[in-house]
Amino acid sequence: MDKQTIMELFSAIASGDVTPQAAYDRLKIMPFEDLGYAKVDHHRAVRQGASEVIFGQGKTPEQISGIARSLMNNGAEGILITRLDERTAHALDPELHAEYHSAARIAVVRIKPADIQTGSVVIASGGTSDIPVCEEAALTAEFLGSKVTRLYDVGVAGIHRLLSHLPLFAKARVIIAVAGMEGALPSVLGGLADCPVIAVPTSIGYGASFGGLSALLTMLNSCASGISVVNIDNGFGAGYLANMINKMKGAAE
Amino acid sequence: MDKQTIMELFSAIASGDVTPQAAYDRLKIMPFEDLGYAKVDHHRAVRQGASEVIFGQGKTPEQISGIARSLMNNGAEGILITRLDERTAHALDPELHAEYHSAARIAVVRIKPADIQTGSVVIASGGTSDIPVCEEAALTAEFLGSKVTRLYDVGVAGIHRLLSHLPLFAKARVIIAVAGMEGALPSVLGGLADCPVIAVPTSIGYGASFGGLSALLTMLNSCASGISVVNIDNGFGAGYLANMINKMKGAAE
Amino acid sequence: MDKQTIMELFSAIASGDVTPQAAYDRLKIMPFEDLGYAKVDHHRAVRQGASEVIFGQGKTPEQISGIARSLMNNGAEGILITRLDERTAHALDPELHAEYHSAARIAVVRIKPADIQTGSVVIASGGTSDIPVCEEAALTAEFLGSKVTRLYDVGVAGIHRLLSHLPLFAKARVIIAVAGMEGALPSVLGGLADCPVIAVPTSIGYGASFGGLSALLTMLNSCASGISVVNIDNGFGAGYLANMINKMKGAAE
Amino acid sequence: MDKQTIMELFSAIASGDVTPQAAYDRLKIMPFEDLGYAKVDHHRAVRQGASEVIFGQGKTPEQISGIARSLMNNGAEGILITRLDERTAHALDPELHAEYHSAARIAVVRIKPADIQTGSVVIASGGTSDIPVCEEAALTAEFLGSKVTRLYDVGVAGIHRLLSHLPLFAKARVIIAVAGMEGALPSVLGGLADCPVIAVPTSIGYGASFGGLSALLTMLNSCASGISVVNIDNGFGAGYLANMINKMKGAAE
Amino acid sequence: MDKQTIMELFSAIASGDVTPQAAYDRLKIMPFEDLGYAKVDHHRAVRQGASEVIFGQGKTPEQISGIARSLMNNGAEGILITRLDERTAHALDPELHAEYHSAARIAVVRIKPADIQTGSVVIASGGTSDIPVCEEAALTAEFLGSKVTRLYDVGVAGIHRLLSHLPLFAKARVIIAVAGMEGALPSVLGGLADCPVIAVPTSIGYGASFGGLSALLTMLNSCASGISVVNIDNGFGAGYLANMINKMKGAAE
Amino acid sequence: MDKQTIMELFSAIASGDVTPQAAYDRLKIMPFEDLGYAKVDHHRAVRQGASEVIFGQGKTPEQISGIARSLMNNGAEGILITRLDERTAHALDPELHAEYHSAARIAVVRIKPADIQTGSVVIASGGTSDIPVCEEAALTAEFLGSKVTRLYDVGVAGIHRLLSHLPLFAKARVIIAVAGMEGALPSVLGGLADCPVIAVPTSIGYGASFGGLSALLTMLNSCASGISVVNIDNGFGAGYLANMINKMKGAAE
Amino acid sequence: MDKQTIMELFSAIASGDVTPQAAYDRLKIMPFEDLGYAKVDHHRAVRQGASEVIFGQGKTPEQISGIARSLMNNGAEGILITRLDERTAHALDPELHAEYHSAARIAVVRIKPADIQTGSVVIASGGTSDIPVCEEAALTAEFLGSKVTRLYDVGVAGIHRLLSHLPLFAKARVIIAVAGMEGALPSVLGGLADCPVIAVPTSIGYGASFGGLSALLTMLNSCASGISVVNIDNGFGAGYLANMINKMKGAAE
Amino acid sequence: MDKQTIMELFSAIASGDVTPQAAYDRLKIMPFEDLGYAKVDHHRAVRQGASEVIFGQGKTPEQISGIARSLMNNGAEGILITRLDERTAHALDPELHAEYHSAARIAVVRIKPADIQTGSVVIASGGTSDIPVCEEAALTAEFLGSKVTRLYDVGVAGIHRLLSHLPLFAKARVIIAVAGMEGALPSVLGGLADCPVIAVPTSIGYGASFGGLSALLTMLNSCASGISVVNIDNGFGAGYLANMINKMKGAAE
Repeated sequence: MDKQTIMELFSAIASGDVTPQAAYDRLKIMPFEDLGYAKVDHHRAVRQGASEVIFGQGKTPEQISGIARSLMNNGAEGILITRLDERTAHALDPELHAEYHSAARIAVVRIKPADIQTGSVVIASGGTSDIPVCEEAALTAEFLGSKVTRLYDVGVAGIHRLLSHLPLFAKARVIIAVAGMEGALPSVLGGLADCPVIAVPTSIGYGASFGGLSALLTMLNSCASGISVVNIDNGFGAGYLANMINKMKGAAE
Repeated sequence: MDKQTIMELFSAIASGDVTPQAAYDRLKIMPFEDLGYAKVDHHRAVRQGASEVIFGQGKTPEQISGIARSLMNNGAEGILITRLDERTAHALDPELHAEYHSAARIAVVRIKPADIQTGSVVIASGGTSDIPVCEEAALTAEFLGSKVTRLYDVGVAGIHRLLSHLPLFAKARVIIAVAGMEGALPSVLGGLADCPVIAVPTSIGYGASFGGLSALLTMLNSCASGISVVNIDNGFGAGYLANMINKMKGAAE
Repeated sequence: MDKQTIMELFSAIASGDVTPQAAYDRLKIMPFEDLGYAKVDHHRAVRQGASEVIFGQGKTPEQISGIARSLMNNGAEGILITRLDERTAHALDPELHAEYHSAARIAVVRIKPADIQTGSVVIASGGTSDIPVCEEAALTAEFLGSKVTRLYDVGVAGIHRLLSHLPLFAKARVIIAVAGMEGALPSVLGGLADCPVIAVPTSIGYGASFGGLSALLTMLNSCASGISVVNIDNGFGAGYLANMINKMKGAAE
Repeated sequence: MDKQTIMELFSAIASGDVTPQAAYDRLKIMPFEDLGYAKVDHHRAVRQGASEVIFGQGKTPEQISGIARSLMNNGAEGILITRLDERTAHALDPELHAEYHSAARIAVVRIKPADIQTGSVVIASGGTSDIPVCEEAALTAEFLGSKVTRLYDVGVAGIHRLLSHLPLFAKARVIIAVAGMEGALPSVLGGLADCPVIAVPTSIGYGASFGGLSALLTMLNSCASGISVVNIDNGFGAGYLANMINKMKGAAE
Repeated sequence: MDKQTIMELFSAIASGDVTPQAAYDRLKIMPFEDLGYAKVDHHRAVRQGASEVIFGQGKTPEQISGIARSLMNNGAEGILITRLDERTAHALDPELHAEYHSAARIAVVRIKPADIQTGSVVIASGGTSDIPVCEEAALTAEFLGSKVTRLYDVGVAGIHRLLSHLPLFAKARVIIAVAGMEGALPSVLGGLADCPVIAVPTSIGYGASFGGLSALLTMLNSCASGISVVNIDNGFGAGYLANMINKMKGAAE
Repeated sequence: MDKQTIMELFSAIASGDVTPQAAYDRLKIMPFEDLGYAKVDHHRAVRQGASEVIFGQGKTPEQISGIARSLMNNGAEGILITRLDERTAHALDPELHAEYHSAARIAVVRIKPADIQTGSVVIASGGTSDIPVCEEAALTAEFLGSKVTRLYDVGVAGIHRLLSHLPLFAKARVIIAVAGMEGALPSVLGGLADCPVIAVPTSIGYGASFGGLSALLTMLNSCASGISVVNIDNGFGAGYLANMINKMKGAAE
Repeated sequence: MDKQTIMELFSAIASGDVTPQAAYDRLKIMPFEDLGYAKVDHHRAVRQGASEVIFGQGKTPEQISGIARSLMNNGAEGILITRLDERTAHALDPELHAEYHSAARIAVVRIKPADIQTGSVVIASGGTSDIPVCEEAALTAEFLGSKVTRLYDVGVAGIHRLLSHLPLFAKARVIIAVAGMEGALPSVLGGLADCPVIAVPTSIGYGASFGGLSALLTMLNSCASGISVVNIDNGFGAGYLANMINKMKGAAE
Repeated sequence: MDKQTIMELFSAIASGDVTPQAAYDRLKIMPFEDLGYAKVDHHRAVRQGASEVIFGQGKTPEQISGIARSLMNNGAEGILITRLDERTAHALDPELHAEYHSAARIAVVRIKPADIQTGSVVIASGGTSDIPVCEEAALTAEFLGSKVTRLYDVGVAGIHRLLSHLPLFAKARVIIAVAGMEGALPSVLGGLADCPVIAVPTSIGYGASFGGLSALLTMLNSCASGISVVNIDNGFGAGYLANMINKMKGAAE
């Protein structure tokens, strides 16, 4: 519904190619398909290079399969299904040939081979327990076409583990820093690296971690520059944003 | 203290140009100058193109002036002083020739003329009261070399005001979405735009806004993709990160 | 116990038709029947057009059946049982002929055919996962005699899905806006529509949604006018209030 | 930007009365005037009967005066300025002839005489200290054309004070129940009255009232039906919504 | 409005002494006087032995003076005004001859000499800073006729100070335990004493005391039996309840 | 360890009946028996009339049985075991002949017949779901010798149900008011009754009831006098304190 | 990576024994072994006397066994595995000969006999239910070589149980005070003892204990000196720190 | 009131040197002096080497002066007055010759020259704004006889500043880590150092730092071992505990 689309529609009306009523109807139905339980958005497919994402949590296997088929019928070349528990994954329409990654709770549907992965996204985790969230981020960024390097269990309580990988961080275009408990990893990375750092708090911890709230607050209060934060355990959001930044073209002067 | 610096130091030891003791001493003092009350970091100047930032809150005019002089003596070509109240600003060393922006609570010190501003950062605010935080972000991004477009008072409760500016958002490289109260602006922009959206909750509101907590939670829970969040009222952090993303060069394949 | 009831009772005493002691006893037992575990209120039946509501949560099948029979014996023509889990629903007295809606967790008992549904209540949801709360609201409003239009999965992160239904919102007498996660839907609708908007936060989400708290705060802080909020997941409360407003008669000048 | 407006615009294009470019430009600027610091919305004026509202908090006297003049120039017949502190009120452009109510922190600008007040809105408060919030609600509803009855200091800790006014509540079309501290007034009124009850928590209290949070939670958890809640101290929102409900016309069958 | 009152009213109607309309009117106005800004309750005076309490916070000197005069005109023999800041106290009607206690923020008006103080209420504080809340409790209980013993600065971090006063606690009929910070005093007293302990958290503290929340939670979670809690800093409530318990007569078998 | 006990011990030392070392040893072991996992307190038995209480939660059947036997061997005539789940109850030592009440999660062991129940404790609940907490309070107070009247489902949203029982409240020596959701019952009762009201918030509710927090805050902020609060769901604490107050003897002048 | 290590490395470069590239590589890999899912730290083993700790929560049996074998291959003489649930414990590599303590959820692997336990750590608990956390602390401190005395069920609600053990506390070098519910034990001990007190809040409790938050706040706000706090239920952290303090050598003047 | 004191008292009774009544009286008054508003504790003086501490906040100059004189009359050789605002400090009894440190809000009274400072306490701060809390800790530890090294502005966002001081941390006996904002400093230090780390969160920050809550949670959730936490801004508590640990003598085997 950007200016160009509206202008073209207006021009078509002016030229008589389209009646006002038809224009209104087209405006109304154009960007998505209505399945009753969901409005499938065929707009984003265009914007993000023929790939689509379905948020799986709270949807039945039938709903997910239906949305996926609608997307495929409209030209999607790949579909990423997130927050998908094992049981729902196995109940998906088998014709989707969905490949399921249980740690990341992600299924991938590929109609055409994926693009070559480019750029450099580094994903670092504070501990071993944060790996599922990291994998959700990693698979998302890879699905969307980014090259990803994983670096797990480099929390700040053993800072030498982190420092031994400085050259890796120096070459990254974007860093995703995933940590539960005290969540201090992004602050340290933000001070060391020169690229954007996406901080992901996880719900790993106990007691006063309050389901990830402690790590979330730590990251929001970081003194380092270049850091921003996504929701607790939101590996997908971090991977999606990281890919978006990683894929940026140079600005014209 | 990246690999190259360490390698050069090691090579200098191996060649006899530097004794081990001197190497250790150099490692210790190299990246910053110790003023007692502050360790001034001359490293970042190199990384961010000869410009420096001082966080003014909680520092005396003498401390800020001292840090600024230390930076200038080490080659800084511009200094940004943030979170600076009016009274402290007027008590700064007059030789700094600091230019003070009262709404944004920012002072700018320019030794050399600033670089030309490039790219496209769009800053949108939900209401008129959010303008000070917006200006902090705008002046920061401009100081660091980004071209900034301001678009104020386009909150989601009057969605037509926002929709009338769609072409502007379509051309942005990065969007900073600033909102208090319910903080829904980033969600709507995240669904409309194809670039990274940096969400800044503000403390504007009353009652159950709880000093910006409500807007913060809204933004963290956004269903739209490509959004990340910084601390409440953290205009500087948003401007800094936006400039970093805006200035990205295209990735090599 | 409104003025008229008290006045009639007083008049009956004055006329000698009722003794003071009998008056007191009538005042004491009149408005409800005491089942021991519950005081069944036969007052509301009169007020709301011969229909009754039982809050099912935390009650045994025997208690619910007992209350329902007490209501039927006192002239109720329809009974709505809310927050009723599947297991309790199936253990209800079969003579009630209760019709169970599992998504909405609601059972309906109909002694006489329902009235014709009038007016216009529009129920919009942010996502597919919010449907159960929407259905609780929809069935409640329909049970009480309102005409309901459902419009699901029109969250603000894809604002064009919402805008394509503007004429529908323009014709509504009341809108129920149901959303979890960031909960921004009511704000946008409140700005577009000219009728009361009842906002229902849901517990759908994860991480910093804190069981619906984030959506609740968003809705309370809405900048749009004409919005009010009910408890998290309180579909019944929204449906009940929507029907009350929908059924309003025009005010005498 | 409702269907009719869009249809008319499209028709104008089709008839050649408007060029596509002009249509786009009209769409862009039509609903509001851009003052730089604010986008003044001339749409709402039409919808709400030639009256306008300015949220005063966080705006300078110059900004408020500017918005008011813009509204008047576009045909507003009355302007309500809310959350206006005494000092700002006195610095407003004197040509506005604004009438200031200090308890309610409201200023009223009247270009034409107000309409006759109709219907019946009852505003009840728990205590004497809640009166400012009540007055904000009362003046708002009266400004918009509702007849308002005030009933202050009838909190539930002295339930007989409330019960003695039952006939008043029985005749109300809408009730606004304002209370701080434990905030139980709406629950009791919701059980007694048959009309919508708008609950307004206030920040009156100390200790565990946590700035109105306690009253807010009480109201959200009310067991009575027909109750909805607005933000803490949001007298304006309650008055606006009450007027909207009070003014409803009867639904066509 | 207890049974006896209603029965007498009904009997008067039955005997023709009172018309139904007059009965209704009497029911409406009987228990209090309406000053517009306050409904003065003349009921409680009867219940609590001819003494009355005015909550001063948020009321103007004129309002307080007006309520006090209304009470005096209806037979009050003593009036306690709580939460009264110094400035308001000095602006009270001088004819009230109010005696102001600044630490406790309480004013006492005595029309007749107070009753002799009986029983035994012991008030213990954790620290010196809690004294104002203690004095509010002490003056309240004394005003209502209880004998009070003060024991300040006996916090649990120096348990020997407390233990040296065991005989005093053993003879108490009620104990009021006042503490800020960690708020552990009631737990220790509850374990040592055999009488009811009223716990009063205070807002004394800093950092994680969160305005008294920490002490409040401690007291609610006490493992000792016989303890109950009032609001933060609610010295009045504690003194009022302590007097009520202290004055209890022995139960008939 | 009250004054009398210490004085007797000192006198025994002075008279030579007890050596200093024996005195110290006696002081050390006198008030309780050490079972390793628990220090059984034989002191309280004396204070509370030969009856004892065991907090069952988090203890194994063996630990509870062991503590019970230790109490019986030291003269306890009755034992109350609280917070006892069904499974643990059935695994208790059968020789205890414990009588289990499943709704209240309480087991009673009676060695001698209980005393006659005296006085008057009234227990009122807001809803049917609050009954388990009420029963915990009721059984506790009855076990300790109080006469208890139960009055369930009289919440404030149907105030006439409550008002019809005014004479009952007027005759109570203590009232226990139990409520979840908005928790407003104690406020209304506190305004109607002249005796101490013990407020018990319950975890009954959903959404913004936050596990009873909402009801707890309501009760702490009550405007009515004579109210104090115990922990969420703490029926035992309320019953224990109610009995203590109910059993009070008249104070000597 | 302390000065000595760096100096030796630099000297080796200067002497030609190590090339700059080799020095960098050594710096990079020296302190730990990379298992992919974990970076095993062989540094700490040296620091803490040849004993190692693995945090078991969130790791698979295979991951834990792999880390343990890596540690043993590098000279660890004992391994402590914490937060290990029963099922994972039984699935560990049997060659580890791990000894499992189910209450404390700890497994101990001993390659060589443990050192003699020295010093004096006293662990006191408020109640019987706190024992699992106590045992986690006790086993940790004993594993690391401290002599531990356990003193359970001495909560402040029965202060005489605590006072009878004063001599024990007087002889302690460090005290660990473990308590849930109101968490007041550390305050009382802090006032009685002259050594450091480590406070451990536990999640034992119900209602307003909020999963240990209440006890945590109590301990942070303690008025007694010499107290510090660890995370809720963090028995390991307390045991580790207690051993560290207990093993301190006297300071040189 | 340790065993020895009680044993001596008992022996004195047995020998007839002290009557039972006198023994009781001595037990009662021995450990402190009662000033009415405060119970001055002369016990701690003995325990902590003839030095005393007064918590100044919430006390009048007269109260503080009175307590100080009482301490001096009982042999105190030095007095530390904490949380003392400038105005109160200047109103202290001039005969105390108190030396005031305004940043730390501490006054020191010295009767005899202080002992030589021994051991090694290192105090590190995250930023310049944390210095006042650091100084409170430093002056406290120095007052009590510890040698203190200050190291300010070494936050984790510039990790190289911290690493350059590793040798200092390696030689510390205790480290006090002071940080606001994200509060990550203790985690990094805890991983680097082998001695106890006392973490002090400060209220420095804005937005989601929530007055120090964010830093507090970070520190409680630290993954590093050997860390414990004190209250927000509690420099005194940290300094006191650090001195206690620093002064420890080696344990006998």
